[in-house]
Amino acid sequence: MSPGRDFALALPARVRAAGSLLCVGLDPERARLPAGLQGRADALFAFCRDIADATAPFACAFKPQVAYFAAERAEDQLEALCAHLRRRHPTIPVILDAKRGDIGATAKQYAREAFERYDADAVTLSPYMGADSIEPFLAHEGRGVFLLCRTSNPGGDDLQMAGAGDERVFERVARLAAGAWNRPGRVGLVVGATYPEELARVRALAPDLPLLVPGIGAQGGDLAAAMQAGLRPDGTGMVVNSSRAILYAGEGTDFAVAAAQAARTTREDINRYRPGAPAG
Amino acid sequence: MSPGRDFALALPARVRAAGSLLCVGLDPERARLPAGLQGRADALFAFCRDIADATAPFACAFKPQVAYFAAERAEDQLEALCAHLRRRHPTIPVILDAKRGDIGATAKQYAREAFERYDADAVTLSPYMGADSIEPFLAHEGRGVFLLCRTSNPGGDDLQMAGAGDERVFERVARLAAGAWNRPGRVGLVVGATYPEELARVRALAPDLPLLVPGIGAQGGDLAAAMQAGLRPDGTGMVVNSSRAILYAGEGTDFAVAAAQAARTTREDINRYRPGAPAG
Repeated sequence: MSPGRDFALALPARVRAAGSLLCVGLDPERARLPAGLQGRADALFAFCRDIADATAPFACAFKPQVAYFAAERAEDQLEALCAHLRRRHPTIPVILDAKRGDIGATAKQYAREAFERYDADAVTLSPYMGADSIEPFLAHEGRGVFLLCRTSNPGGDDLQMAGAGDERVFERVARLAAGAWNRPGRVGLVVGATYPEELARVRALAPDLPLLVPGIGAQGGDLAAAMQAGLRPDGTGMVVNSSRAILYAGEGTDFAVAAAQAARTTREDINRYRPGAPAG
Repeated sequence: MSPGRDFALALPARVRAAGSLLCVGLDPERARLPAGLQGRADALFAFCRDIADATAPFACAFKPQVAYFAAERAEDQLEALCAHLRRRHPTIPVILDAKRGDIGATAKQYAREAFERYDADAVTLSPYMGADSIEPFLAHEGRGVFLLCRTSNPGGDDLQMAGAGDERVFERVARLAAGAWNRPGRVGLVVGATYPEELARVRALAPDLPLLVPGIGAQGGDLAAAMQAGLRPDGTGMVVNSSRAILYAGEGTDFAVAAAQAARTTREDINRYRPGAPAG
């Protein structure tokens, strides 16, 4: 564990230092790895390490996705990756994309997994089980959570848009996250980029919360509209994730160089819509 | 993988053969393991194996909880446990309690984790992201899912009871699971035992679905009311989980004997409320 860290301070500090709202998602699909890495026993680790080292100058955060390691029996490689990120890029927060959601003694175990085993700065969670599924994670001082709120996938409407009355489910999540569940700077929301009106609604309900926004790059989404809807007045408050468009920007031995170029371009694309952002 | 298995057939067959609706939850907390196992490198595996072997005659299913293994860097022990259950107790379905919830390529990885790596018969999922977070799991023929619907924890109300109109969120989950999302016998719901009225409501909306019911034993809950609310007319359709009350029934070297006695008693307690169930 790294006891001295505080996600509430580390994220804004990194956003300023890197002039970036870009989060580099580390979702290593074995079949898509460069040929030169395919045979290696530590291919997932080596690929993500090289991507991270190359894209670090342009990143405000890294987001490893647990599923890709779990399916390959490669938790040891995820551990090695997180340790590498911590050592080599100590000022860049690591958001573990795990979407855990359980309660009581079980949630405590998942919090240990995220914050002790992997030493992540923050973790994504599903809010379906409510307050006591979130609290055991926030009991880890200085660590953060991002709660699923409004997702852009086709099934995102199924539950998140429920509630014909005065409040839909995703609005309730935003309200609770900004209210009863909040710890300033440590509770954020996952909101897709595809529906700018709903992103704006979330921002209205949660004026200060950091929003983790997937749906840029390979997943599509209108960046300009999303930025306008989700930014705080100071031009921050969003962490814009791109995974596949960066990871698989190149297919050969120059994959890391291609990833760095894609990350730089994406950072600049994002900054175009940020008031007061540094020029690329 | 075990291609020939079919959860839709295996669960009811086991319920009949064992005369039991009891699911034995395998949530091994390291600090609570018997002293004799504490020092062993494979303590989680050894404990759960001994519990499973002792309680098997009284169980319709086993439910290992991933979090306890993940927090201890012990996925290898969970693999060994699942392999043991498959080999030694081939007619008893294994429900992996993972509460995963993601979409697209990521959900496919989690499905591989559950059904290939651990070779589970079914997995618990969070429905927050909707239909396309469930589909990749059902693409594995013969495997099942249990979707979180109405949970008994204090925060269970936060989202699940939302929807002041004609349908609350947990009711929507039940309706969709019994309708658009259903695959007969392969889609079930997780419903706590604490609120019999809501359990009855779920049963009304989903007359045929298997319900996985935690909240018995260490977690409290009124068994009689829950059974009356959740059973199908044929006296089945519920999988009643007990974890801690069985796992920690004894603290010494006889922990497995104590667990077996607790499992037998719990099976009989449950059967008391089942029409046509075999006498203890």
